[in-house]
Amino acid sequence: MVNTGSTHCKFEVPEIIFGRRLLNQVGSCARRMGGKKVFLVSDQGVFEAGWVDVVMRSLQDEGLAFVFYDQVTPNPKDFEIDQGAKEYIRHGADVIVGLGGGSAMDAAKGIAILVSNGGSIKDYEGSDKIHRPLPPLVLCPTTCGTGSDVSQFVVVNDTEKHCKITIMSRCVAPDISLTDPDTLETLPDEYVCTTATDALSHAVEAFFSVASSSLTDVNALKAIRLLSKSYVRAVRERRPEDLENLSRASLHAGMAFSNSLLGIVHALAHPIGGLYNANHGSVNAVLLPEVLRFDIPVVTEKLPELAWALGHHVDEDSRGGAAEITQETIESLLDAGCAPRTLRSLGVRREDLPDLAEKATRDICILTSPREADADDLLKILEKAF
Amino acid sequence: MVNTGSTHCKFEVPEIIFGRRLLNQVGSCARRMGGKKVFLVSDQGVFEAGWVDVVMRSLQDEGLAFVFYDQVTPNPKDFEIDQGAKEYIRHGADVIVGLGGGSAMDAAKGIAILVSNGGSIKDYEGSDKIHRPLPPLVLCPTTCGTGSDVSQFVVVNDTEKHCKITIMSRCVAPDISLTDPDTLETLPDEYVCTTATDALSHAVEAFFSVASSSLTDVNALKAIRLLSKSYVRAVRERRPEDLENLSRASLHAGMAFSNSLLGIVHALAHPIGGLYNANHGSVNAVLLPEVLRFDIPVVTEKLPELAWALGHHVDEDSRGGAAEITQETIESLLDAGCAPRTLRSLGVRREDLPDLAEKATRDICILTSPREADADDLLKILEKAF
Repeated sequence: MVNTGSTHCKFEVPEIIFGRRLLNQVGSCARRMGGKKVFLVSDQGVFEAGWVDVVMRSLQDEGLAFVFYDQVTPNPKDFEIDQGAKEYIRHGADVIVGLGGGSAMDAAKGIAILVSNGGSIKDYEGSDKIHRPLPPLVLCPTTCGTGSDVSQFVVVNDTEKHCKITIMSRCVAPDISLTDPDTLETLPDEYVCTTATDALSHAVEAFFSVASSSLTDVNALKAIRLLSKSYVRAVRERRPEDLENLSRASLHAGMAFSNSLLGIVHALAHPIGGLYNANHGSVNAVLLPEVLRFDIPVVTEKLPELAWALGHHVDEDSRGGAAEITQETIESLLDAGCAPRTLRSLGVRREDLPDLAEKATRDICILTSPREADADDLLKILEKAF
Repeated sequence: MVNTGSTHCKFEVPEIIFGRRLLNQVGSCARRMGGKKVFLVSDQGVFEAGWVDVVMRSLQDEGLAFVFYDQVTPNPKDFEIDQGAKEYIRHGADVIVGLGGGSAMDAAKGIAILVSNGGSIKDYEGSDKIHRPLPPLVLCPTTCGTGSDVSQFVVVNDTEKHCKITIMSRCVAPDISLTDPDTLETLPDEYVCTTATDALSHAVEAFFSVASSSLTDVNALKAIRLLSKSYVRAVRERRPEDLENLSRASLHAGMAFSNSLLGIVHALAHPIGGLYNANHGSVNAVLLPEVLRFDIPVVTEKLPELAWALGHHVDEDSRGGAAEITQETIESLLDAGCAPRTLRSLGVRREDLPDLAEKATRDICILTSPREADADDLLKILEKAF
């Protein structure tokens, strides 16, 4: 099947606010949502970097009370979310602010689901299981990869089954996505690198997705263009302009994949992340080149534009050239950013590969892959990436 | 002042649904908004083309009652909106569907303002004058230019002052924008041509606006790319693929200008439209080349990308070349589509030019022009376009 983008499409994004030194606007956003007592979800790293303080001050400036919840770890766990919801209810909060990377923001979204729908977060796995409206939600990313601040997804670790579960619903997109790129200045090098590779895989998978459309493509291509320009320089020199470009790339990639969904990279990354608690961006960086090699034969029509976004000028009829350029440029980009290149180096065990491939066939992200893949195909990809 | 795009930006668009043969989904959209009795605003032309029927059937299929209001004329008049609001209230409707070009959709938005905020539509001129939430609003364009289906604007004719007034508020963006490009198949040639030039001027002005950002730029450029590819062919051959591209261009341009606002073309087009009841797209087509000539010296940094969208490959450092290419390509595009080239041919009188220029200095669109312009500058542009 050759994917030329879907003719019927839907596109939905929250209100977006983007700009340096805007984190102190969180208070006015929360007040505009009608909040009186804010449940602020973040983590220790973001607290130590000083950003929680900025938000707390802006809440105080608007006369809002707040409760701080920081019991969130990377690849957020089901019980952390169940516990957060109890805290929210105990304190009588009425609006949620999520500040941090994908983990803090997904935890905030998960808590929002539970406080109005009850039960445990695992009850909501899959598509459209949420029936009651969520409390107002403001999400502020402090990394450059997750896209959770605009997306219709929540990814949570099921600690019994050791697997990531994906919750998908238009309800979980926040009311406001507020990005202050200055927050990247305190992000450790390693996370700049790995979250940017997450954004890159979001953009590439969104662009190839069978549910892509011109509405998502323009955002996917912009993300790829910005990453191609600033990723390596941001990792090496950390200039504010380049960091801002990464923030912006993450936002554009989020707008794309939230509406076009993803593909095999994420279908495989979810079970891997669930089993090993491995860094999500690193897993994607390892898988992306192999999945690209697998996908490219069925997406040739889209490659000249992708090559353009990667900084090359390719004639529309020279699709073979575009394929090589795309593969090579993305691999050199990952290399130059010192992204890991093998699953082995991330702690993945060879004997687990068949089970991981099997789990990936049931992941929601496989549905929009441009090329159909069964467990055997997925296992081959995993072996090549091992 | 050289405009390189704003660093701080906001971006807000309604839920978007786009695709051929989707007009029969209006009923389910209205029902999802909680409606029981729909106030359907359209006009005689759209009715005769059969599209009102499609929508009525879809409302019936969902068990919804409806009232049909078609007292809307091109450049919708204040009294048509005041009257529509009375009808809505008299019938006890609870959701509004606008189906048609900018006139029908702006009328629908105006009626939505009045039924929950009271008074006359002229009370809401300017920015953020609306204080109570509007009833649910679903807008379906049947032309390829207005952008009203996604925008935060309503433009209405003040029939006492013979001037168009602009209402700007985030409240007036609809809940759902639903585009079925098949509706273009019954649009007379003349309107395909003039509404597409409206979309082109939206895209160009949005791209040059001082409030533009990467979020609006990607949409403006996509609109220009699609128009550059399909405008002439759509006007001459009316193939469904090209008409769909024009629909899509209009949507992308709307997403761009609703968030970045516009410039001198629209600041001048509003008083002209108010005074002569002239076709909005035609007025824009005449003004665009002259405004372009005026703006280009201050937006040179953005020209290589614009030239790319127009189908040319220009090196980033060859800005002079990009200026010429941009000016020439846009002018030939308008010529090839047989767009009018003089204000005189649209019924504008030379003695009115100074007053029109004066009125344009007070239009909200002048605020985001990339180049400052006083009444003298605007008069010169009008004289050149005369």
